[in-house]
Amino acid sequence: MIRIDDAEDARIAHYRAVRDRDLAGRGGRFVAEGEVVIMALLSGRSRFRPESLLLSETRAEALAPVLSQLPRDLPVFVAGQRVMDAIVGFHIHRGALAIGRRGETADPTSLLSGLPQPALVLGLVGLSNHDNVGGAFRNAAAFGADAVLLDRSSCDPLYRKAVRVSVGASLLVPFAWTETADDMVRALEDSGFAVVALSPQGSELLDRETWPERTALLVGAEGPGLPPALIDRLRSVRISMAPGFDSLNVATAAGIALHAVWTSRRRHCAD
Amino acid sequence: MIRIDDAEDARIAHYRAVRDRDLAGRGGRFVAEGEVVIMALLSGRSRFRPESLLLSETRAEALAPVLSQLPRDLPVFVAGQRVMDAIVGFHIHRGALAIGRRGETADPTSLLSGLPQPALVLGLVGLSNHDNVGGAFRNAAAFGADAVLLDRSSCDPLYRKAVRVSVGASLLVPFAWTETADDMVRALEDSGFAVVALSPQGSELLDRETWPERTALLVGAEGPGLPPALIDRLRSVRISMAPGFDSLNVATAAGIALHAVWTSRRRHCAD
Repeated sequence: MIRIDDAEDARIAHYRAVRDRDLAGRGGRFVAEGEVVIMALLSGRSRFRPESLLLSETRAEALAPVLSQLPRDLPVFVAGQRVMDAIVGFHIHRGALAIGRRGETADPTSLLSGLPQPALVLGLVGLSNHDNVGGAFRNAAAFGADAVLLDRSSCDPLYRKAVRVSVGASLLVPFAWTETADDMVRALEDSGFAVVALSPQGSELLDRETWPERTALLVGAEGPGLPPALIDRLRSVRISMAPGFDSLNVATAAGIALHAVWTSRRRHCAD
Repeated sequence: MIRIDDAEDARIAHYRAVRDRDLAGRGGRFVAEGEVVIMALLSGRSRFRPESLLLSETRAEALAPVLSQLPRDLPVFVAGQRVMDAIVGFHIHRGALAIGRRGETADPTSLLSGLPQPALVLGLVGLSNHDNVGGAFRNAAAFGADAVLLDRSSCDPLYRKAVRVSVGASLLVPFAWTETADDMVRALEDSGFAVVALSPQGSELLDRETWPERTALLVGAEGPGLPPALIDRLRSVRISMAPGFDSLNVATAAGIALHAVWTSRRRHCAD
């Protein structure tokens, strides 16, 4: 544990850049915030490695049993809450941050070819809202999705807020980028996935579906949705809703569809 | 349309108090924000009446066809974006606000006794997060819930952010308050509702359930969940999740459960 009393200390430079795009965006590092997320980062299931931790004094005390298990070469910086807030530039009420390393970006084709059988993939198209991307990852983890694909107009699942909303799921569920939605569909079909577009305009009802061994569910942003040409050429599925209010949050819609695939497979296995 | 050029104009006094608790909280008025929410408030399906609108110039132009249909005695204030921001005290990027009147608070027993047969009610216990309450209302509307009950530790569905996240659903779905969760269960049971607790500790699986004619689903806050004594004495249901990540957002969990009841009833009616 390394005591930090000066917000300008060179050793915690990365924590002074939490709001910078190079750190928050797609650079080599990312920020994990809060105890639950940091526990996910420190767990054996995380796809990413921690580089350091920055904890408030009270949080360091609470986490002492966990900290004693960490590799000895992982720096754990400890600061008073005021120093911590001064470092980061705003109040960190959870009192716990970590810097993680992104490592190599996964190639979608290699990622997909390495998935088990059966496999379930969630594809995000145009999801530019961090809450929705984080929520989609949380649901992907909860319902056993094996991977998430994102097109380049979707936002970074390793952005601090997305990681936080995902409750750490974006550190656990493998993901990869494709340039466009068409590239995503091509990569999925080349790897033997049946690609299903989830859309209020879908031609089939979600709960009447059966699901192929390798299924990918695609969702688009609230409002624009998936490109119409894509919906036309794919199998498309809709969630039944009450007349007069056909409006669901995209992460919730993804969660309902993932849950449907998950329960249908579990039921199948139990039979 | 009433032109406003001065942020201190007495006629738009209510809009200067948008962040005040008396307006945002449980006073006589509430704030609706954004075009979709305001359209819900102006629709025949809203349970609440608008008192006035405050629009930016560009928004007023875009909404001209709608505005021409409004009652002549409903004041529509129009201001430049800068004046509008000065009135409210922060940037209103949607450029559209309305003040609504809360009217009488519904009595839970009267609300429940007036519901149709079959009926579906969502009960929120300890939901102190506006996003979650808004999200729960959105899902309640999407899956045809007839009413929402809230205990006093849950936050106000008419708070600006909750209304916005609900996409107007909290103006449409009838709701009522009970003091405690126990009061809520009592009111529901007295009105002939089967009350089902949704919990990760639930004894039955959601997708194996059949649903009584009058069903109420109860959810608790993420983390604490519903009081254990309540889970013990009610029928309790859990959502199947992947091992090692049994974590769902409460509004999403409510959405998945409401969707299950909705589709099971729709299927039943179709048979």
